[in-house]
Amino acid sequence: MPKMPATFYTPFTYIVKLSKMSCDWKTAYKKNRVKIVKGLANPDEVAGLLFQSEIFNDEMHETVKVKNEKDFRPFKLLDTSNKELAKGLAPYVLAVEEGDNKTEPKEWPPSVDQEKVMLNDPVIKIKDTKSPLFIHEYGQEYVYTIQSERRGKVFIINNVNFKGPMQDRPASIMDAENLTKLFEELHFTVLRKDDLTSQDMKSFLCEEAKQLDKENCAECAILIIMSHGSGTKVYGVDCLPVELKSLTDCFSSENCKSLHGKPRLVFVQACRSYDKSDVTEKFKQMTTEPHDEMDAEPSKIEVKENKSPKCTFPDHPSADFLIAYATPEGTKAWLHNDVGSWFMNAIVWTFKYHAHEEELHHLLIRVNRLVGKGSTLKKEMTVAEVKSNLRKKFFFFPGIHSKIPTLF
Amino acid sequence: MPKMPATFYTPFTYIVKLSKMSCDWKTAYKKNRVKIVKGLANPDEVAGLLFQSEIFNDEMHETVKVKNEKDFRPFKLLDTSNKELAKGLAPYVLAVEEGDNKTEPKEWPPSVDQEKVMLNDPVIKIKDTKSPLFIHEYGQEYVYTIQSERRGKVFIINNVNFKGPMQDRPASIMDAENLTKLFEELHFTVLRKDDLTSQDMKSFLCEEAKQLDKENCAECAILIIMSHGSGTKVYGVDCLPVELKSLTDCFSSENCKSLHGKPRLVFVQACRSYDKSDVTEKFKQMTTEPHDEMDAEPSKIEVKENKSPKCTFPDHPSADFLIAYATPEGTKAWLHNDVGSWFMNAIVWTFKYHAHEEELHHLLIRVNRLVGKGSTLKKEMTVAEVKSNLRKKFFFFPGIHSKIPTLF
Repeated sequence: MPKMPATFYTPFTYIVKLSKMSCDWKTAYKKNRVKIVKGLANPDEVAGLLFQSEIFNDEMHETVKVKNEKDFRPFKLLDTSNKELAKGLAPYVLAVEEGDNKTEPKEWPPSVDQEKVMLNDPVIKIKDTKSPLFIHEYGQEYVYTIQSERRGKVFIINNVNFKGPMQDRPASIMDAENLTKLFEELHFTVLRKDDLTSQDMKSFLCEEAKQLDKENCAECAILIIMSHGSGTKVYGVDCLPVELKSLTDCFSSENCKSLHGKPRLVFVQACRSYDKSDVTEKFKQMTTEPHDEMDAEPSKIEVKENKSPKCTFPDHPSADFLIAYATPEGTKAWLHNDVGSWFMNAIVWTFKYHAHEEELHHLLIRVNRLVGKGSTLKKEMTVAEVKSNLRKKFFFFPGIHSKIPTLF
Repeated sequence: MPKMPATFYTPFTYIVKLSKMSCDWKTAYKKNRVKIVKGLANPDEVAGLLFQSEIFNDEMHETVKVKNEKDFRPFKLLDTSNKELAKGLAPYVLAVEEGDNKTEPKEWPPSVDQEKVMLNDPVIKIKDTKSPLFIHEYGQEYVYTIQSERRGKVFIINNVNFKGPMQDRPASIMDAENLTKLFEELHFTVLRKDDLTSQDMKSFLCEEAKQLDKENCAECAILIIMSHGSGTKVYGVDCLPVELKSLTDCFSSENCKSLHGKPRLVFVQACRSYDKSDVTEKFKQMTTEPHDEMDAEPSKIEVKENKSPKCTFPDHPSADFLIAYATPEGTKAWLHNDVGSWFMNAIVWTFKYHAHEEELHHLLIRVNRLVGKGSTLKKEMTVAEVKSNLRKKFFFFPGIHSKIPTLF
């Protein structure tokens, strides 16, 4: 690389010189347009990416870091019709595309190899803590406050070994491990319980909710339930059902006052079928499909009638709750023997690679898209479902613990 | 204003000179940080806003339009610690704050005067169609395609006059009118039907779904139902119930193949109580509350048992549906005599002022926040609830009809 006058040490100088390669950068540009434009607003990130991609060497990287402030006008650049400069962006555009491919599984459920790579990756943290564009709407009044060293607690109930007619769910152990790691990296304290009876599920959560209320320092509470289920119920390892609502109610504003106005997130991996004959039939067919199991109870289990929820009106008992289900009401959820459940695995993939850049509802659209790609050998499919009463946006803000940035 | 040399004709020159006023711009800055930074990426918008606020005159506005390209580096500006320049932004910051105050009702439900002002405002259109930051993620594969001259059809069922024991819902006429205007401005064709029986509701929607399928040109279908309701049912004006699911099913991928993979949005203003004795009691109390009525049936109506939905697995029958309810399952929805229902009115307020800048799920967080602010004379409150199976982001893109922008 020949020495150039100092005023030309911008990323683009290098890029233009390096863009002689013939590659489909226009397609990559079209696909990643928004990401690229956002990235260009942050020269350090562009330089960093080019460095990672070995397009920049150490010295070039440092030079750009120092010099770029003067000549970098990304928005102007993208609005101009200077084709030479635009073409010069090709390597950056392709680097973005490459990064994007890595974080998007090629198939769903993913292959064991792809899963391994993902599991070894850390949660992507927010790096640029100065620009409001990069830390989203941090500290704004219409965004839940998520900034403490520890954001709150995650309660995982992982029912694997059932005492009775229900099939065991060994693949759920992977989910429990991956979710524990994920939420610890997202700055939560994780409490995991395996193999609880229906009664123990309720008492565990109610005790913990009381404890949380006493401590009075959580910004958020997260509840993860993985078990068999039917309709509005989930099952203990004693094969007895418990209403999901009676579990989430432990964290209602009425029962846990310190959580009032704070976000409570619930993730449920369980079947939601109503039709018992249908469940049995499909359940039998499952023996020909070793890879994807169903989270439902066999038809022998007695299902009690739903109780009507009572109409009470304290100050918003249902507000600030988000419940994400593995599957829509009336349908079945799926579990893959090698990589865990479609839904929980999609959460790990999505939150790990995108929690630094997307709001929770948008993360869950991604989860939904992934789950929707899955298909059993019998071509059975499903999608995830989100029920939200949140009144503010929710960002995990991985890596951020400071107060609102004060730019002036 | 003294004449200055041409090179100084940037917005900031004027702003610095005009910022002698003493005002709480720091608070306004903190509150509107993200909006301000985004705005600064678009000098024309800044100039436009200052012009609207009468801080700029005609000539100044034109000058800025021509000259600003050269000296405008918003991101650099906000990352610098140049306090003089930062302070100079005060009038812009306050103009943003003022605009924001106007689009945020001071109370909920809003006063009749505030409502009038809102109703006279048009839907805010996207102006800058060149910058990807301003048209969001338009044309990206993870965003639903919404770009035709006509996006699709909106079907409004507005049940007002009931033949039987149910109370009439005259305030719903306002909602129907406001929603018709809103969605026409959002480039939809609106079909409104008043006072349908339970049977007519079903046949109207199924006929229209068939027609839509035949035309095969809709990018999206929207269904709005306003009536009395209980649990999972809504009522015809003959006071007979119909399962909401049997109405939305008309637009399932199975029944309307041309909508497969396309977004189907459902907005429901109706009570969702189960407890009949509770409904009656509250219903009687309503006579002391002339302003907020309840969308529920009196207890005399026979409620049939729910049928279990069948478990079938065509290709994603539930995917790409979003259902937004006025209130959570098991609770009551509210209707204001002077300004319409809390929920539908919140939709009109929110979509009108924010559809140009926010994704649907985020618009509905705003709706939820507004509805949650409402309180009857008896301090009864509720929140809206969203159930989403969408697999992509949904933007209305008001004002945009072109293809994906090709910048180079």
